[in-house]
Amino acid sequence: MNWKNRLRCDETAAWPLLQAHARTFRQDASSFDLRTAFAEDDQRFERFSQDAPYVFADLSKNLIDDRAQQLLLQLARECGFEAHREALLTGEPINTAEQRAAWHTLLREPYAPGQETASTSIRAEVAASLADMLNFADAVRADSRITDVVNIGIGGSDLGPRMAAQTLRTAGATSGPRVHFVANGDGHEISELLPSLKAASTLFIVVSKTFGTAETLANAKAARQWFLADGGSDVARHFVGVTCNTSAAGEFGISRVFSIWDWVGGRYSLWSAVGLSLAVAMGSAGFRALLAGAHAMDQHFANAPLETNLPLRLALLDIWQCDFLGLSSRCVAPYHHGLRRLPAYLQQLEMESNGKGVDAHGRRLAFPTAPVVWGEAGSNGQHAFFQLLHQGPGVTPVEFIAVREPAHSLQAQHRTLLANALAQARALMIGQSSDCGHRHFPGNRPSTFLLLERMDPASLGALLALYEHRVFSSGSLWGINSFDQWGVELGKTIATDLAPRLTSGDTAGLDASTAGLLKRLGGS
Amino acid sequence: MNWKNRLRCDETAAWPLLQAHARTFRQDASSFDLRTAFAEDDQRFERFSQDAPYVFADLSKNLIDDRAQQLLLQLARECGFEAHREALLTGEPINTAEQRAAWHTLLREPYAPGQETASTSIRAEVAASLADMLNFADAVRADSRITDVVNIGIGGSDLGPRMAAQTLRTAGATSGPRVHFVANGDGHEISELLPSLKAASTLFIVVSKTFGTAETLANAKAARQWFLADGGSDVARHFVGVTCNTSAAGEFGISRVFSIWDWVGGRYSLWSAVGLSLAVAMGSAGFRALLAGAHAMDQHFANAPLETNLPLRLALLDIWQCDFLGLSSRCVAPYHHGLRRLPAYLQQLEMESNGKGVDAHGRRLAFPTAPVVWGEAGSNGQHAFFQLLHQGPGVTPVEFIAVREPAHSLQAQHRTLLANALAQARALMIGQSSDCGHRHFPGNRPSTFLLLERMDPASLGALLALYEHRVFSSGSLWGINSFDQWGVELGKTIATDLAPRLTSGDTAGLDASTAGLLKRLGGS
Repeated sequence: MNWKNRLRCDETAAWPLLQAHARTFRQDASSFDLRTAFAEDDQRFERFSQDAPYVFADLSKNLIDDRAQQLLLQLARECGFEAHREALLTGEPINTAEQRAAWHTLLREPYAPGQETASTSIRAEVAASLADMLNFADAVRADSRITDVVNIGIGGSDLGPRMAAQTLRTAGATSGPRVHFVANGDGHEISELLPSLKAASTLFIVVSKTFGTAETLANAKAARQWFLADGGSDVARHFVGVTCNTSAAGEFGISRVFSIWDWVGGRYSLWSAVGLSLAVAMGSAGFRALLAGAHAMDQHFANAPLETNLPLRLALLDIWQCDFLGLSSRCVAPYHHGLRRLPAYLQQLEMESNGKGVDAHGRRLAFPTAPVVWGEAGSNGQHAFFQLLHQGPGVTPVEFIAVREPAHSLQAQHRTLLANALAQARALMIGQSSDCGHRHFPGNRPSTFLLLERMDPASLGALLALYEHRVFSSGSLWGINSFDQWGVELGKTIATDLAPRLTSGDTAGLDASTAGLLKRLGGS
Repeated sequence: MNWKNRLRCDETAAWPLLQAHARTFRQDASSFDLRTAFAEDDQRFERFSQDAPYVFADLSKNLIDDRAQQLLLQLARECGFEAHREALLTGEPINTAEQRAAWHTLLREPYAPGQETASTSIRAEVAASLADMLNFADAVRADSRITDVVNIGIGGSDLGPRMAAQTLRTAGATSGPRVHFVANGDGHEISELLPSLKAASTLFIVVSKTFGTAETLANAKAARQWFLADGGSDVARHFVGVTCNTSAAGEFGISRVFSIWDWVGGRYSLWSAVGLSLAVAMGSAGFRALLAGAHAMDQHFANAPLETNLPLRLALLDIWQCDFLGLSSRCVAPYHHGLRRLPAYLQQLEMESNGKGVDAHGRRLAFPTAPVVWGEAGSNGQHAFFQLLHQGPGVTPVEFIAVREPAHSLQAQHRTLLANALAQARALMIGQSSDCGHRHFPGNRPSTFLLLERMDPASLGALLALYEHRVFSSGSLWGINSFDQWGVELGKTIATDLAPRLTSGDTAGLDASTAGLLKRLGGS
């Protein structure tokens, strides 16, 4: 099957079979129960768990059985998943709305110079671009005059590098200058940061593919104004750009530009020059280790049979929960403080990729796609919203992430943390009967458990690549183009219309609510 | 009606009428449409918006009409809401499971010494306790030897003070020593912070009602160990406690203790000595302004008729969305960078209070209670998950929060921010038709808009009190005890069982999944 002719999940023979099978999972006395499933099958843990590079995943405490698993794999085959995966990994233009590849995997492919063909030529360019970026990062780290680096970018130009830098800093894998991130269009963010910096010792990295992102330009201008007011004079030395638009960067005063590839989407761009701030935090060796970890997961995704392919297995579980069990959100609970912003990163990765109401051909979809992804670091969540997970009337699947080895010496505290992660997952499943209503835990509540040996650049790279491929896989089966984001356009257009009205007070043509709020906000 | 005999929402005459009425809101061609509703009623904005102290709320862009509103008010009256509200505000033991009041409003009531009665006596104690705490906070601020204050607490002993301190710092309303927060049982959090401190200039505030919270004790011990290793000698001068358990604090080495009231729940305790770190950040005048703002909202909640009572109106909307429209999550989008952790705070406030499966009498509930609350600061969210809000197949109500006056001088940037908040809400509602599927925005998507004049302690106090009363109100009508949290107990018990097994490797009696994961995690 050619990837262009692939089927959508609801066009397969497996789809109605899955719908019928899902009825046995309804929450009633005779329905599927995890406790019974474990009691009746002593191989359940082995069969519903999966090793992959740097990540072990236990899916066995989910509301899924062999028949569902087999039907889901059948669905993937019927959809032509393997052809689509091949197209992703070989740089076919699978972002059809924009006629572009989504070839972020190429950015982490090891490069060995070879015979010049069209395809080795792009590989050579990628390798050269990476080397250039990493050389610059190492030079910044070696430059004792630079104490602070500020990444100015938003969305994909912020969430990935920010989360990864934070994770690896908490894990003790960063050094060098302090690295800060400014994203918000709200001027409070940059206004709070700048007074703590000195112009002479600060490097700003302005990240915007088009150099036209409103928030990023506004923050970059505020930074430049502050820089000059603080006695800075050499804008070209203290501001660099990561952008495709060299001329707009030049007009701003930036001469040193790191380019990005038009076949890399914002939320998949951490691996490109968009990761410059992260490279400064880690150094080139760390960044190359991050890429190598991601590449190891790419290889697993490319080569593992569908039955043992972890990204696909997670995606099939997502589809099962979303479309057949009616579970509309997923809680991500990383039991590693460094990963505390992983949920925010995943919100973009998953909800911007797959939060679509039409398929790649523009046809309206009649089934749910991306769930709402949310969460906080464990064990914090236990003291906040876990009450609802355990005893709320609804069911929310939880995704635990634990890291075996700590990067600190508080061994006993780490054991307690791991015991808590295990305990929460077990408590959700086994529950506890009580005649006293408020002490009753229904149990049979699903969770997935991801386990890393340690937190280091390679492990993080593999984990993030796992999530990327999982999102690609579910999007593929849903028939979605996971690489566009037209849904952000209307708000931008309307904001451009409204901004001058806040000064003029003109409410012509507006709905009464917008007009009423505008009047209250006006003159600010 | 006595509050103890109040009805549960599904026992009222209004309940089935609301169910019938909700059918006209199903998403089909003939269903309720916001665009039509505004076109047909030029008073919709006025009737569905509400002024309250420090907060203006526009509810008009929600999927609600007059009949729904009337029936919801009828439901509240039938339930005996007014009697329950009275019981809350007068300190009746409405936390029935624990036979305690939930009298956090008393903490912000202005005190005028008067004739001694039982009730003025407790007021005098509260006032004295507050004065003691604020005097200490001001003394810390005036002590130039203290440069850093570390709050060690988790859940309600962390989320409120942390969020409020962050908000007011971003808003330029804090000063004095640096205030840090450590919550996570994961030793990475405290291990990352400590090396940046000096024992001689650091004050630790250990916050735990029982002085038995596992995470807090572990972090406090790690802090004490570091303090002594860093040359600190006077534990009693550098560690203070906020706790009911003076003797346990004493055993730890703490002599200066600020007590908390057993009738104040953790997630409602920001206003008590649990707010000490916040008081250090703001000073006593700021803290008193925070209390005064909250008190103004308390007065509104106590006295405004149900029809114009903002906390109740928001609660009725929550019930309408949750139980009749089937909307299972709510996105909170604060367009103020200082409020970026408000969603995390609200997750505890709402989901721990109302994420219950039984009513206050222990009877199983057959309807959804608290929605999943999640979100990120605007405009960041626009570049992350707003794609799903605009074009995803499902509907997620959004709650915008905007602040008219910035605390910085980037006026144009602030106007753009406000324009963006307005534009997103408008875009969700009006949508945009297109034959080209991926450019089609269905519209008719609901949002609420909360508006503050400025961000200062009083406004923040009012906003948080608004949320508290909203959660009380919906919990009251759902028949829930919003002030207990039995759902956190089972996981704790199981964690205590599992922790030693990580060393011993003993898997006896465990399910195969927990056993398998334990083996992989063991020896760490």
